[in-house]
Amino acid sequence: MKKLLIVLFVLLAANTWAQSKPDRIEPMFWWAGMKNPKLQLLVHGQHIGAYSVRLNYPGVKLLKVHEVENPNYLFIDLEITADAKAGKFPIVFMDKWKKVAEYSYELKNRDLSPSRIQGVTDKDLIYLLMPDRFSNGDKSNDIVKGLAEHKLNRDSMYYRHGGDIQGVINHLDYLKALGVTTIWMTPEIENDMPLASYHGYAATDHYKIDPRYGTNELYKTYVDKVHAKGLKVIKDIVHNHIGTGHWIFKDMPMKDWVNQWPVYTQTSYRDEPVMDPHTSQADLKKQLDGWFVPTMPDLNEKNPYVQNYLTQNHIWWIEYAGIDGLRLDTYAYNDPAYMADWALKLKAEFPSLSIFGETLVNSVPAQAYFTQGNTANRGFDTHLPGVTDNVLKSAVYETLNGKSGWVDGVFRLYNVISQDFLYQDATRNVIYWDNHDMSRFYSMIQEDINKYKSGMALLLTMRGIPQLYYGTEILMKNYSAPDGLVRSDFPGGWAGDAKDKFTAAGRTPQENEAWNFVSKLALYRKNNPALQNGKMMQFVPEDGMYVYFRYLPEGNGKDVMVILNSEDKTKVLDTSRFAERMKNIHSAVNVISGEKLNTVKTINIPAKTTLVLELN
Amino acid sequence: MKKLLIVLFVLLAANTWAQSKPDRIEPMFWWAGMKNPKLQLLVHGQHIGAYSVRLNYPGVKLLKVHEVENPNYLFIDLEITADAKAGKFPIVFMDKWKKVAEYSYELKNRDLSPSRIQGVTDKDLIYLLMPDRFSNGDKSNDIVKGLAEHKLNRDSMYYRHGGDIQGVINHLDYLKALGVTTIWMTPEIENDMPLASYHGYAATDHYKIDPRYGTNELYKTYVDKVHAKGLKVIKDIVHNHIGTGHWIFKDMPMKDWVNQWPVYTQTSYRDEPVMDPHTSQADLKKQLDGWFVPTMPDLNEKNPYVQNYLTQNHIWWIEYAGIDGLRLDTYAYNDPAYMADWALKLKAEFPSLSIFGETLVNSVPAQAYFTQGNTANRGFDTHLPGVTDNVLKSAVYETLNGKSGWVDGVFRLYNVISQDFLYQDATRNVIYWDNHDMSRFYSMIQEDINKYKSGMALLLTMRGIPQLYYGTEILMKNYSAPDGLVRSDFPGGWAGDAKDKFTAAGRTPQENEAWNFVSKLALYRKNNPALQNGKMMQFVPEDGMYVYFRYLPEGNGKDVMVILNSEDKTKVLDTSRFAERMKNIHSAVNVISGEKLNTVKTINIPAKTTLVLELN
Repeated sequence: MKKLLIVLFVLLAANTWAQSKPDRIEPMFWWAGMKNPKLQLLVHGQHIGAYSVRLNYPGVKLLKVHEVENPNYLFIDLEITADAKAGKFPIVFMDKWKKVAEYSYELKNRDLSPSRIQGVTDKDLIYLLMPDRFSNGDKSNDIVKGLAEHKLNRDSMYYRHGGDIQGVINHLDYLKALGVTTIWMTPEIENDMPLASYHGYAATDHYKIDPRYGTNELYKTYVDKVHAKGLKVIKDIVHNHIGTGHWIFKDMPMKDWVNQWPVYTQTSYRDEPVMDPHTSQADLKKQLDGWFVPTMPDLNEKNPYVQNYLTQNHIWWIEYAGIDGLRLDTYAYNDPAYMADWALKLKAEFPSLSIFGETLVNSVPAQAYFTQGNTANRGFDTHLPGVTDNVLKSAVYETLNGKSGWVDGVFRLYNVISQDFLYQDATRNVIYWDNHDMSRFYSMIQEDINKYKSGMALLLTMRGIPQLYYGTEILMKNYSAPDGLVRSDFPGGWAGDAKDKFTAAGRTPQENEAWNFVSKLALYRKNNPALQNGKMMQFVPEDGMYVYFRYLPEGNGKDVMVILNSEDKTKVLDTSRFAERMKNIHSAVNVISGEKLNTVKTINIPAKTTLVLELN
Repeated sequence: MKKLLIVLFVLLAANTWAQSKPDRIEPMFWWAGMKNPKLQLLVHGQHIGAYSVRLNYPGVKLLKVHEVENPNYLFIDLEITADAKAGKFPIVFMDKWKKVAEYSYELKNRDLSPSRIQGVTDKDLIYLLMPDRFSNGDKSNDIVKGLAEHKLNRDSMYYRHGGDIQGVINHLDYLKALGVTTIWMTPEIENDMPLASYHGYAATDHYKIDPRYGTNELYKTYVDKVHAKGLKVIKDIVHNHIGTGHWIFKDMPMKDWVNQWPVYTQTSYRDEPVMDPHTSQADLKKQLDGWFVPTMPDLNEKNPYVQNYLTQNHIWWIEYAGIDGLRLDTYAYNDPAYMADWALKLKAEFPSLSIFGETLVNSVPAQAYFTQGNTANRGFDTHLPGVTDNVLKSAVYETLNGKSGWVDGVFRLYNVISQDFLYQDATRNVIYWDNHDMSRFYSMIQEDINKYKSGMALLLTMRGIPQLYYGTEILMKNYSAPDGLVRSDFPGGWAGDAKDKFTAAGRTPQENEAWNFVSKLALYRKNNPALQNGKMMQFVPEDGMYVYFRYLPEGNGKDVMVILNSEDKTKVLDTSRFAERMKNIHSAVNVISGEKLNTVKTINIPAKTTLVLELN
């Protein structure tokens, strides 16, 4: 049908009685009362480039209409003044003196309810899931006709499994019971790609939820339901690239919509050129403008049309659905100047929105380089509040897996935290031990339940915003290479699954032990401000033990002491070193076991365990 | 004799006809025309605490006389106004109304010759030596009566060997021929300690060159002679501690002249508490106030008398001898606020003086934390221009010793340099592959002459101030533990040595190969500004090769290209990636071999070697 129409258009294009009409206007609608009065509409349609545009609505000025390289596009600059009211008005497209089409553009009223766009902070616990792999709540959208990938095959990691937004909605009570406060799904927008479309990072339509996950309306409903449960939503967005199946990529406004190279050139995947004062421009260009993979065209973020398109799209989703925070994919691959400007624009519209960037880098300086405040002597401010703390993750693995030495293991962990001075505020960083791009935590610690508990204790008590990867609470395992099994389905997420691990009855005793540990501590954390946004004080590790405190300077009688015994034997800790935090402390409660300690002068810590104590 | 006098003092103290006199006034003299008009004299003598003080000299005001805990001290605050002229004046000590003693205090004229206090920069090449172990130029001072250590034993690393300042003076031509521009001796001031007094970091008299090295006058002569050769001098100073044999420690002005602990407490040797925003005060105190070793009392740098004493002593030596730069021992163990104030005071007096701190730490953030410019978000400015770049050293070893991986070996080296954005100016850091506290370079690279040449090529071409440890040029070797042989004598430094390796004839062919390599490159460096203070541009390592350039932005036709092949096979480097630096380059000269390359489109690099090319 679509093909037939195109044939007709081509046949009739020169004919005055049948001019083509715009087939896309994006953003499809907007809001009155935004901070930034400027709006740039992207309009697509066969041969519409020469059309003129008219509109007449109080408070809306037509500033400029841009013709571009590709005659199938127009870009319309509007100014929406503060006195513009919500309402609809026609945008009229004229071919010379003849009206060709009319689009009813709407300015909506903003929804300023306090339950929307709340921000995600170190009070929260984020649960990261892949929507295709968590739960299939709506079988009717498993296979959607007209999309490039038709197959559903739960036996392969690389095909669609059928999970969807309804599946997540169905398990909000599960997540709340676990102690989660915030849900981060890998990208939900359309990925109409022929292979591995479940992956989500190869967008093909920025304004449309992938129909296999649901609809835009369902996504908005999902956010509302999450908020109604007292939970929050993070949206995962990608500035750097799109999928080759993106409708714009198939018919680009101009060649430099994406970064072009004489021959296919891949990014170096090296963050150093971005920060290196000695870098060559060649290396910088390769990192920033090289493509991530051949199927993901690299957007040219220096192109002002691309800038407007992306920035408005993100603002649109937040205002549309009421999202609480954004996770920015592949942050280190984006144009730094654009990203700084983007962050300022987003914060101007949504002051309480949280933002963090994915920085899979290998040093604190590199992580700090990307965070806001020009803290790292780099001459400009990224305005990015936080990053994913990959360096802390590595240090935790060294600690749990028993490496030791002057700068290794527990000393690495201590050292990494000491470098927090490089950040304006390290508590805005997301801390995590795994995600969809790496081996699962439980496998990385040799499926050792004691190491698991130590790791979870650290995750839920250190500074930063903790993030759990779906299934970690039920000891899901596997390595990232070679089989992608780290993205396995959550058992019980599909009708007819042999086990339903969303229920205690469906879990093994050991899975319940893990689940209960996480839940116990996560729920405790929700009720103890010392663990949410209290200060941290850490001590130089001695005798293989790493000790830190989370506390409120004004005191709340519930400061938390964490003691990690990294060695293979039980230790007795003399606490006199910690007088600064224990002066008036006479007893403690083990937060997990509930056991009361009637003295805290010395504390026994079993081999390779981590105690979390509430000090009283 | 001295003991007898003390006995007499004690016997006669109460006797009105024989009051004790001051036996020390420090600084012994000062200068007119210093920036800081304040001067605090430390005066020591039996029971002099109650004496009053009179003086009368135009431009010199007696501000205050401080009595302190110990009645054997007075501290005299003077103000020396800008109009005070050089000259002598009596300081009169009165016991009630009776004049007890008179000290003829001198204000000298400053020597503002341009050959003095020139600063040491990345144009220079520093040669670090231990004066006891380099050359014995004066046998008459080998054993000095009255000092605690009497033994000379060249067979033991822990006894005196007899080297001295005259020995260094005797070899200035040797050093100049090698291409050295700056001499750094480990501390030359008196270390009257019973054991290992050669070590030099346990001062017992801040105002006196150790008599086994020479005299104050000889030290001044040494600096003059060095300057006359067109070379420079760095003095190694210690703020943090003294030796237990220090005359002040034996009779302290007040108990808190040194950091006191209920029981002996050693520093943790951990720099983290100094920078860690989460540190405990207990850990910070232990690091800063804990003693380095039991024989080295830790000075209380929060005590204003100690502050004045140290600061003035350092100013005194610089003005007295005309020193070009200071190396600050154990920088991370000092009180940060005092050290910042100290640096401001020193820079105010001597704007061109160079200063760098020893920071034997393990991350660029830690190194950067200690450098000036508040570059690291730490809320205050250390005012310390540079540090010793230990992290670069580790990266170079990883590179030379063949470790490889995404963040290892040559990538570590590249990564460390990329973190230069953390410094205000990384070129002020001292780069080095070994010193007197660590295993020698040649041993650390398995005595491999090719690795040696690679390492020397890096040392002499990277950004920063290169420092060579004495004997590295003749392949001296050994490990720091357990025998201290890294501090062996320079062969030929003693009359009668079997070999004289100061001469080509005394060196083996391989030693000459090493010596000639260093000398060739060091002398070349002296004549190519691109290698002195040119900018650096580095490229992401590819195919095991690390490539960087030193260049003048304005161009001088002698830019330098360095290519390190970290792998075990010969490589052919296609140079098209480096167009930014090679656009108009058609040929090159191998700086070491003199070989001319008539094309630079591709360059052959033998396995495990580093080429240094001058681009033409």
